Amino acid sequence: MTPEQLFSPVVGARPHEAILDQVERLLSAGLIRPGDRLPSERVLAERLGVSRPTVREAMRTLEALGVVLPTQTVGRGSAAVVAGRADAALGAVLRLAIATSGLSVPDIVDTRVLLERHAVSRLARAPEPRLDAAEALLREMDDAGLTPERFHAADVRFHIALADAAGNRAVALMMSSLRHAIEGYVLDLVGGLDDWPTVCRRLRVEHRGILAAVVDRDADEAARRVEEHIRAFHDVATGVR
Amino acid sequence: MTPEQLFSPVVGARPHEAILDQVERLLSAGLIRPGDRLPSERVLAERLGVSRPTVREAMRTLEALGVVLPTQTVGRGSAAVVAGRADAALGAVLRLAIATSGLSVPDIVDTRVLLERHAVSRLARAPEPRLDAAEALLREMDDAGLTPERFHAADVRFHIALADAAGNRAVALMMSSLRHAIEGYVLDLVGGLDDWPTVCRRLRVEHRGILAAVVDRDADEAARRVEEHIRAFHDVATGVR
Repeated sequence: MTPEQLFSPVVGARPHEAILDQVERLLSAGLIRPGDRLPSERVLAERLGVSRPTVREAMRTLEALGVVLPTQTVGRGSAAVVAGRADAALGAVLRLAIATSGLSVPDIVDTRVLLERHAVSRLARAPEPRLDAAEALLREMDDAGLTPERFHAADVRFHIALADAAGNRAVALMMSSLRHAIEGYVLDLVGGLDDWPTVCRRLRVEHRGILAAVVDRDADEAARRVEEHIRAFHDVATGVR
Repeated sequence: MTPEQLFSPVVGARPHEAILDQVERLLSAGLIRPGDRLPSERVLAERLGVSRPTVREAMRTLEALGVVLPTQTVGRGSAAVVAGRADAALGAVLRLAIATSGLSVPDIVDTRVLLERHAVSRLARAPEPRLDAAEALLREMDDAGLTPERFHAADVRFHIALADAAGNRAVALMMSSLRHAIEGYVLDLVGGLDDWPTVCRRLRVEHRGILAAVVDRDADEAARRVEEHIRAFHDVATGVR
């Protein structure tokens, strides 16, 4: 089957949504995969029986959702390529959803605790936990010259590295989305701290403690430490302690 | 400040993303809220210094993300209205992300267990749990004439009602997104069952058991029952039992 034969004419009042649905079904069925090139705008418009602007809008949406790679630099009308992992784009989407829904900080903190306790205790129970990525990030965060922003970026990657290594992709995806979603808020908090060097030293010690518990295969201790770490950071940053 | 003064000229190579960022920041800051009308396409294009098609594409993306209400029926060029809760759209997005990322069924089941154990045990500890919505859905599912599809839709709403009542919006949002995301897969499973009436009776009993534990304020028992319920359903549906 040629790529364009995968798509079928769109019927109904909302062609834009119908195109997204078709792409989703083709992805779910494994008929299109990351790295595949979709038919060009012109071919898709013919095949789907819709206008080229409609195809373009659907492609832009898929691009915003991280499902296809950006084609803007290549020029209009060119074929889109299916993207790999959609975590970062999903983060952008969750950020918008959180902005619209008005989630509260305590709810976000509790959800982080829930997802991250699960991740580190699962990792501590893994037969051969892969910890290289997390360890490399700890070394990166030892650099005393890091700005709070760069430290925070490495910190987020450390937590996501643990979740990735723990192996539940769904939990890792939600965790990284939530982290990307609250990034702006956390950076605002960090920017308002009186004594960043002290906080930063404490975060380093806590990170090493979490990893040590994982290395010791102590799932309960790893879960306890990650919870304490998350709650302490939010308490410091919001001025409770 | 007039609505158009909230927006500022877009700079850089990716105007489409810059527009999404501006909308997100305005939402986060509470400067635009659900129900508000955004400036018209024409006004936005002038204010942002971009073409009208670029504004239209950004609005379509926001529409796909559930951030603004669909304007298609009202006609092109009209002003978009900020939407309320973005759960359903977020579900569509997560569904695409899951399709791209190829999440496994065991990971999805474990994530459901994690989120739903948290929700019901939190609900069982609430001072005055609001259970009317969940109870009404149990009565709806007692109707012996329901098709598997309608039963399943009420079943999903029952689980989401418990999470909503539990009060952590972030967990409820992720749970409902995940449920919407796996809807097609679950309906395929249900459609392949030999003995739907038996499965259906068992699901009813299990639902009442979960609610009874919540009413008894037994958080551990409620968590245990919801986990057993989720795992048993996936085992039956995938033919393990």
